[in-house]
Amino acid sequence: MAGALALYLACGQFGVARAAEQVDLDVVAKIRQEAFSRSQAAASLKELTETVGPRLTNSPSYVRATEWAQDKLRGWGLSNVHDEVYDPAFGRGWEFGSAKVELLSPRRLPIHALPKAWTRGTNGPVEGELAIATFKELGDIDKQKGKLRGKIVLVDDARAYKAAEKADFRRYSDTELGELQTFPVAADAEPGAQDKRLEEFRKRQALSKALNKFLAEEGVLATLSISSWDNGIVRVMGGGARKAADPVGVTELVVSAEHYNQLVRAVQAKKDVRMRIDVDSRFTSDNDLPATNVFAELPGGSKAGEVVMIGAHLDSWHGGTGAADNGAGVIVMMEAMRILKAIGVKPKRTIRLGLWGGEEQGLNGSAGYVAKHLADYPEPTDPEQKALPRAFQRGTGPLQRRADYGRFSTYFNFDNGTGKIRGIYAQENFAAVPIFKAWLEPFNDLGADIVTTRNTGSTDHISFDRVGLPGFQFVQDPADYSTHVHHSELDTYDHVLPEDLKQAAAIIASFAYNAANRDQPMPRKPFVERDQQ
Amino acid sequence: MAGALALYLACGQFGVARAAEQVDLDVVAKIRQEAFSRSQAAASLKELTETVGPRLTNSPSYVRATEWAQDKLRGWGLSNVHDEVYDPAFGRGWEFGSAKVELLSPRRLPIHALPKAWTRGTNGPVEGELAIATFKELGDIDKQKGKLRGKIVLVDDARAYKAAEKADFRRYSDTELGELQTFPVAADAEPGAQDKRLEEFRKRQALSKALNKFLAEEGVLATLSISSWDNGIVRVMGGGARKAADPVGVTELVVSAEHYNQLVRAVQAKKDVRMRIDVDSRFTSDNDLPATNVFAELPGGSKAGEVVMIGAHLDSWHGGTGAADNGAGVIVMMEAMRILKAIGVKPKRTIRLGLWGGEEQGLNGSAGYVAKHLADYPEPTDPEQKALPRAFQRGTGPLQRRADYGRFSTYFNFDNGTGKIRGIYAQENFAAVPIFKAWLEPFNDLGADIVTTRNTGSTDHISFDRVGLPGFQFVQDPADYSTHVHHSELDTYDHVLPEDLKQAAAIIASFAYNAANRDQPMPRKPFVERDQQ
Repeated sequence: MAGALALYLACGQFGVARAAEQVDLDVVAKIRQEAFSRSQAAASLKELTETVGPRLTNSPSYVRATEWAQDKLRGWGLSNVHDEVYDPAFGRGWEFGSAKVELLSPRRLPIHALPKAWTRGTNGPVEGELAIATFKELGDIDKQKGKLRGKIVLVDDARAYKAAEKADFRRYSDTELGELQTFPVAADAEPGAQDKRLEEFRKRQALSKALNKFLAEEGVLATLSISSWDNGIVRVMGGGARKAADPVGVTELVVSAEHYNQLVRAVQAKKDVRMRIDVDSRFTSDNDLPATNVFAELPGGSKAGEVVMIGAHLDSWHGGTGAADNGAGVIVMMEAMRILKAIGVKPKRTIRLGLWGGEEQGLNGSAGYVAKHLADYPEPTDPEQKALPRAFQRGTGPLQRRADYGRFSTYFNFDNGTGKIRGIYAQENFAAVPIFKAWLEPFNDLGADIVTTRNTGSTDHISFDRVGLPGFQFVQDPADYSTHVHHSELDTYDHVLPEDLKQAAAIIASFAYNAANRDQPMPRKPFVERDQQ
Repeated sequence: MAGALALYLACGQFGVARAAEQVDLDVVAKIRQEAFSRSQAAASLKELTETVGPRLTNSPSYVRATEWAQDKLRGWGLSNVHDEVYDPAFGRGWEFGSAKVELLSPRRLPIHALPKAWTRGTNGPVEGELAIATFKELGDIDKQKGKLRGKIVLVDDARAYKAAEKADFRRYSDTELGELQTFPVAADAEPGAQDKRLEEFRKRQALSKALNKFLAEEGVLATLSISSWDNGIVRVMGGGARKAADPVGVTELVVSAEHYNQLVRAVQAKKDVRMRIDVDSRFTSDNDLPATNVFAELPGGSKAGEVVMIGAHLDSWHGGTGAADNGAGVIVMMEAMRILKAIGVKPKRTIRLGLWGGEEQGLNGSAGYVAKHLADYPEPTDPEQKALPRAFQRGTGPLQRRADYGRFSTYFNFDNGTGKIRGIYAQENFAAVPIFKAWLEPFNDLGADIVTTRNTGSTDHISFDRVGLPGFQFVQDPADYSTHVHHSELDTYDHVLPEDLKQAAAIIASFAYNAANRDQPMPRKPFVERDQQ
């Protein structure tokens, strides 16, 4: 580690390492020209978001998206274009067509609301009185028994409006980029933190199943919860049950904060508060369906058996059209492949694109791919362990490395919204730092120039990182990702910046080419297996 | 004017004028205590916005609001509480209950939209194909004849998303307050500017009437226009026809920008774009109804025949609940009256509250009051002049002053949202400047300390100002008035800051008391009659 750090300093201050890391500037120039002058990014994004639409994993439109992406990639001349099942029984298909929600009394008001994924529709309009009931632990269910039949239940507290005193759209300032390059040494983990997380997970699971069962048996018409953002923006993810074996519960809607608070106040004022709800949503399968990822390749030359991967998740939530999360990433990665094909480069290693499903439910597509092709911990035999998500499983023995584990070089991911690339998270891989600095140099004029040793998480590079393979996510300008679009109905085409996607596609095409063509694969950082952590 | 300016400088720098303007600090202390410790502002606002609801002029809920306000004011012991007609035939009543709008193909999507006021409902669900047709001049109507039967028409162009790079919620900085105290000398008006405005007004009127007639005859199902703000916020005002004699046209909806742009792109892609619309709205009268203002008084003592007025408009648009525009002003003004009554002061002059109707349609309530009780230009005899709004009428002869014109001291208005008072616009009344500075001094610790000589417009003090009477509007913090709430569906209770209303109520109670109790009425600025302008 000390050696790697010295190289890093040398690179930053004296250019020694930079000389060692060759970058083919002719290829960079071709990439930039193709990316900026003949971009397909905006046109592809428009098709993906508005012809295909939002892409909840295993929904009909997710399946259409996998077909659309393969058609495009084949049309661009890429190789080995195919989809592959990563989970034979991921969950049921679900889609929704419309959601009409209205307050009938004490006064009439159309209510701004969207249904949670994998929840029941209403089978036509239903009407009921509103009630407030929050369910924070199992005991709360007993208290409500016999009280909620035929009612529409507000399951969250009202929330005071919080005015945002920062701009909703931001690019990183130099100060923020400087700060991002410092490494925050973590405090010691609380003893037993993992056990505590597991305990909380189990409680949540148990409460969710018991609650869904109770609400259906009690004859509740629907539950309403408050959107997690203000200003009328509805953010909506999943509810009900994705798995055929789990109790689905009742219709569940997320309501804009401004409307939700009004409903709570009306009920608290003991008025006769009545609503009508008509949610046209449906499960498109009775059984858990297999879920797929999509792949395409630019075949390698002298080291064709070694692989460099780039990828982004193809799935989205259903409230908007999944434009920034993660249409942007899909389009940037597809565009990077198109550019490399179009300029006719012949890299030594194979460059493989992965478009992942099930990211929003826990990085499932990329994790399934890694488990099948690269490395995985053994399946638990203990049924209790078996029932847990893989991230919680322990004591099953050491990581099993597949044949391709050794031939895998690196993975690059793009999933922080539409914002252009300002640099890359080196994910504590110190040997990668000078390499990335050299690769970014021809893109410094596009605002991409920092390499931070920090880790970032919450997306698909983690599926590689956690089995000891190099996996990276770029530093992207925040844009309005965390104020308007993330998991919200506003995640639509208009909130994506085509110029930023062009910049990102050029940088990623170049990173992929450099990684595929350098003499050595990407260096790996020290790896600690999960039972030793 | 030079004298007044000297006094102003003296006040600002040496305190000479301040000594001349007496402020009863015992009364100030009582006002602040009543305003801050026993405030009714939040409770009153909740009732007005969520029990009464939005208050489109002449809608049933506007009428309920006039009753609610009178009940409250009577309950607080105020005198001469009554309503009064300001226009015997203002327009028809209108209200809406729900608006369900959905895209059916090429994919299903609930569309976020609200109907314009005074437009037709659909009488149940209607379905039609989408078409694009913009109508910028009369000739555009002919081009569309025979093409739009049974269609739903997009009448605006798509609009590119504009990311806001400033915070959505703001208080004035010291720099901005400093800037506000400079006076921008206006450029010469373009020659014939008034004639040009009149010409444009006539064109707009003619286009609107011809278009409404055409759309109905052509059998268009509905028109859709784009909300003037991004981020999913629907801003909606009036359309159709308020007056019984004018052609109503068809159902008109305003659609969120993110959805509207998607619809335009879908039509441009020549897909079969179909929608279903179900708008439950109705005119609540066939004929133009009389429209009213609400009044209440704190009777004066030795100068009871002289009047100080405070006021705000009670009407609102219908998309939200009219909380910031102008529930805030109504509550602040009602609260100021309550405070003065509660602390038992006996001012020399009568303090009168006016809650105005029809402000959103052109300051109609306050203008009607002023015309009837204070001053007005003669009614035109020329039928062409008669058909114009009063602001465009010319050549009808000099202002006719009623008996109370001489006994009127001043009017204070509050209608710039929820933001607290930072000072007051002196509206070029230089003699008022040192008076206001003295009156604000006991409120400097609450952030209210500037007096700007600038003019501000767009609300009811203008009805007084334009007949030469002192009328003022306060400088208020912007809050999120121009980013979230103004004329939008987000203009709801949660976006109002009760603390800011308390501060404003205290200052306005004090201003009203000071104006009512000083020896002289408020000085008047030089006045130029409209035919001499």
